Amino acid sequence: MTERSIPFTELVQSLPATVPFVGPEAIERQRGRTFEARTGANESAFGVSPKAAAAMGEAVERISWYGDPESFDLRQALAAKHGVAMEEICVGGGIDELLGLVVRMTVTPGTPVVTSLGAYPTFNYHVAGFGGRLVTMPYVDDREDPASLLAAVGKERAPLVYLANPDNPMGTWQEAGAVADFVAALPQGCLLVLDEAYIEFAPEGLAPPLDTSDPRVMRMRTFSKAHGMAGARIGYAIAHRELITGLNKIRNHFGLNRIAQAGALASLDDPAFIAQVTAEVAAGREDYYALAARLGLSTIPSATNFVAIDVGSGERARAILQALQEEDVFIRMPGVPPLDRCIRVTVGRPEERALFAAAFERVLAALPA
Amino acid sequence: MTERSIPFTELVQSLPATVPFVGPEAIERQRGRTFEARTGANESAFGVSPKAAAAMGEAVERISWYGDPESFDLRQALAAKHGVAMEEICVGGGIDELLGLVVRMTVTPGTPVVTSLGAYPTFNYHVAGFGGRLVTMPYVDDREDPASLLAAVGKERAPLVYLANPDNPMGTWQEAGAVADFVAALPQGCLLVLDEAYIEFAPEGLAPPLDTSDPRVMRMRTFSKAHGMAGARIGYAIAHRELITGLNKIRNHFGLNRIAQAGALASLDDPAFIAQVTAEVAAGREDYYALAARLGLSTIPSATNFVAIDVGSGERARAILQALQEEDVFIRMPGVPPLDRCIRVTVGRPEERALFAAAFERVLAALPA
Repeated sequence: MTERSIPFTELVQSLPATVPFVGPEAIERQRGRTFEARTGANESAFGVSPKAAAAMGEAVERISWYGDPESFDLRQALAAKHGVAMEEICVGGGIDELLGLVVRMTVTPGTPVVTSLGAYPTFNYHVAGFGGRLVTMPYVDDREDPASLLAAVGKERAPLVYLANPDNPMGTWQEAGAVADFVAALPQGCLLVLDEAYIEFAPEGLAPPLDTSDPRVMRMRTFSKAHGMAGARIGYAIAHRELITGLNKIRNHFGLNRIAQAGALASLDDPAFIAQVTAEVAAGREDYYALAARLGLSTIPSATNFVAIDVGSGERARAILQALQEEDVFIRMPGVPPLDRCIRVTVGRPEERALFAAAFERVLAALPA
Repeated sequence: MTERSIPFTELVQSLPATVPFVGPEAIERQRGRTFEARTGANESAFGVSPKAAAAMGEAVERISWYGDPESFDLRQALAAKHGVAMEEICVGGGIDELLGLVVRMTVTPGTPVVTSLGAYPTFNYHVAGFGGRLVTMPYVDDREDPASLLAAVGKERAPLVYLANPDNPMGTWQEAGAVADFVAALPQGCLLVLDEAYIEFAPEGLAPPLDTSDPRVMRMRTFSKAHGMAGARIGYAIAHRELITGLNKIRNHFGLNRIAQAGALASLDDPAFIAQVTAEVAAGREDYYALAARLGLSTIPSATNFVAIDVGSGERARAILQALQEEDVFIRMPGVPPLDRCIRVTVGRPEERALFAAAFERVLAALPA
């Protein structure tokens, strides 16, 4: 068989067969052993709201029915929570799916798209998948840099720019005013995807007020992090209704899992649980800060459910990551310099943190200086 | 705000804001009343395997973890079931999502794509969404017509053609030999999407043998129908590994619900349950055939979990569909002539079938001749 016999588009033919992340299960299969501490994928270690768990369990009974393609009940609850109209919300299979849709909506082969060098790989994967040309600006002091992103948008006349607040993989953040200024400075015809996956873990007031009258920004939120529902795949976009209409023109309308919708709706109804999770996460971050300090390492202050620990160099970070795997501890690390001088550890349960701490100390001790 | 201020691609700007189907929940909201018989969306009325239900219930516990992006365990089980390699299978969020991916993989604006006039609207939605040019060939005797599809592929040099076997919305089918002949006659560089969503309800031997060495065909299967897991959104494609590699280049790798994966795996392990469902469905079809005969109407013999009943004209079919809604009975009907002289009724549970039968008889009696 020749390649010619498969009618791939030129674009798909040209794409590499890469994935944004290798899942922990794949690593476990390679190792032939499961991890004791799953502290790499920024999954919540603190489970889901009991209300959400109950709703999901009950939803299994009606799994033979498609979920509501309009996610009416969930959008209604989200609209009330955020003080926006239902028509300003689109529910999708996690932010990942929504990122793919917004890229598809704005990018054709050759379109410049601006992001930070080392920011979320799945966004980059989608940009590449639709033939966009990534323009990356460096982090400054471990933070995404709105000024250089803005300059790149202007220089490239880019229709799409990505910013995460708080940021992944460093855990740093922008003040709400800085984000609002960034949006206000964007040229008409440029859309900011503001990824707020980790916003619940951040100090109050980090998210700028929602302004759905401005078509230059789309906010992305998820149930994967603080709500502890990563495996359910459910998130949402908040934006000007014309932008939401665009998503609705191309999304897979019957694509949402019925159990996920039920769980998300119930989880919204349990803010006390989310408050408890974020408090536990804040305590966990302090644990990691203290651990690093005790080991003579510095940490990057985090507004997320993970902490980046500076281990000095990319080489050391990669060696530590590998050695921790041998200790049955799963972590990840940023992909590019200078961020890759850090390892990135998700806040686990206290016992996972203890496992990580002990393993990390052993690994460091065994490492050549 | 002008439209110019949103950086939609020309294609997305040009798309209509339509949906392939309106969900029953939306109709219920319009009516202000729920349906008593949900017999319109070809959802299984016979639930899921108890093994699958148990597995899904248990999976809720780990919902804070992403599902395995490689669906390793499920692909392994599917490969064993079908006697193919794991690398010849791609799991997706139902056939709907996989159809979107295969269209994206092969279609750019203007690409001709061949299907039957009145066949699955969601496929057409995806083709339109990627700017493809749909070429539709008429059904012949209420069946899709491989000969004319093949002629259209040749004439248009189409790289993609769609055939469902058994068919939706008519429930008719092609013999395995006819499908195999169709594939064999396709030019190199044309891909057949063979949608076998309903295959479990069909007589043994309707599916041609799997030949993953031929890059001209991709088979689509689902857990939505006989397995009763429509709300879970999980299905898969079987094809030459180069085709699967293409899907893997563009799919949303962390997009699959963890509960859906667990349920699908467990459902595969309960063939006795599937056999029981298909037997109940077969009995239900006979019920509908008998009902129609008693009412002086003809039916289209079906190899699926629904039956098309010929009511004489599109006008009558639409009137009946509306009147049945008033009776709290949800059905659908084909969208285009001459298929739209039929209503399409999903095989419900015996009590739903009785509700439908009584309502249908009342509605027919009240209809002008």
